[in-house]
Amino acid sequence: MVQLPDVTAYLHAEIAITRAMGIEVAAWDGTTVTLAAPLAPNLNHADTAFGGSISTLGILAGYSLLHLIFLERKLSTRILIQKSETDFLRPIDDAMRATAAISTPAALDDFLDTIQRKRRARMEVESKILCRNVLAATHRGLFVAMKY
Amino acid sequence: MVQLPDVTAYLHAEIAITRAMGIEVAAWDGTTVTLAAPLAPNLNHADTAFGGSISTLGILAGYSLLHLIFLERKLSTRILIQKSETDFLRPIDDAMRATAAISTPAALDDFLDTIQRKRRARMEVESKILCRNVLAATHRGLFVAMKY
Repeated sequence: MVQLPDVTAYLHAEIAITRAMGIEVAAWDGTTVTLAAPLAPNLNHADTAFGGSISTLGILAGYSLLHLIFLERKLSTRILIQKSETDFLRPIDDAMRATAAISTPAALDDFLDTIQRKRRARMEVESKILCRNVLAATHRGLFVAMKY
Repeated sequence: MVQLPDVTAYLHAEIAITRAMGIEVAAWDGTTVTLAAPLAPNLNHADTAFGGSISTLGILAGYSLLHLIFLERKLSTRILIQKSETDFLRPIDDAMRATAAISTPAALDDFLDTIQRKRRARMEVESKILCRNVLAATHRGLFVAMKY
């Protein structure tokens, strides 16, 4: 059973900037991961969330989804991002949450099957960034995972 | 005459996460801006630069280019990002630099003309992120500037 504070501690230890941003893993149900970040350390010159922080939260939601999938299956992998796209839809003036989910069980099966056979697989992961439960940005990340 | 330490201080004051990342404005010649960031505060789980930090540096290079253009012309504007795309080409295992440049004098003239007439203009800015002078990532940002 994955303990969320352990995953937050892992992010803070391995990716220093996540600690500066105050990012925490808020929820995980085996399919969808939710990250949370306060506004204050992520403010920009317009007193809303900085675009770099929003993109970073989107990247981390996708990364955390794959990290949790592998952690639960005790697969040792390295996950890297190859492409990141963020659309900023509206200003964020309060704490943010980002969710990323497995698109379909079949897509996950294909991904896990490929990584077992070829030791390397790619997956596109969509993240939604919300503020007060309203969609404020979307992120698409192309990730590559390597088994070792 | 713009003083680079003042621009760095502005970024650190207005966008808190730039201080945590150790970002500095390293050069500006009226056409091209260069930002620099050390590796240590931007490390990931693979001991290379974290994708979120690379994207953020790309966004900030584009933002700083527009900020400097307006600063030199004494135009008061608010600059926001609408879309951000990063392609990660190779791992970054040392300090990074990001450059963003005015594409053509004509594109800049159009942009400045539009913002004077309509108080609002969009511009796409490309940033290149380098490590040891080798291209390691590219960023495209779509920015909107509003005059006030």
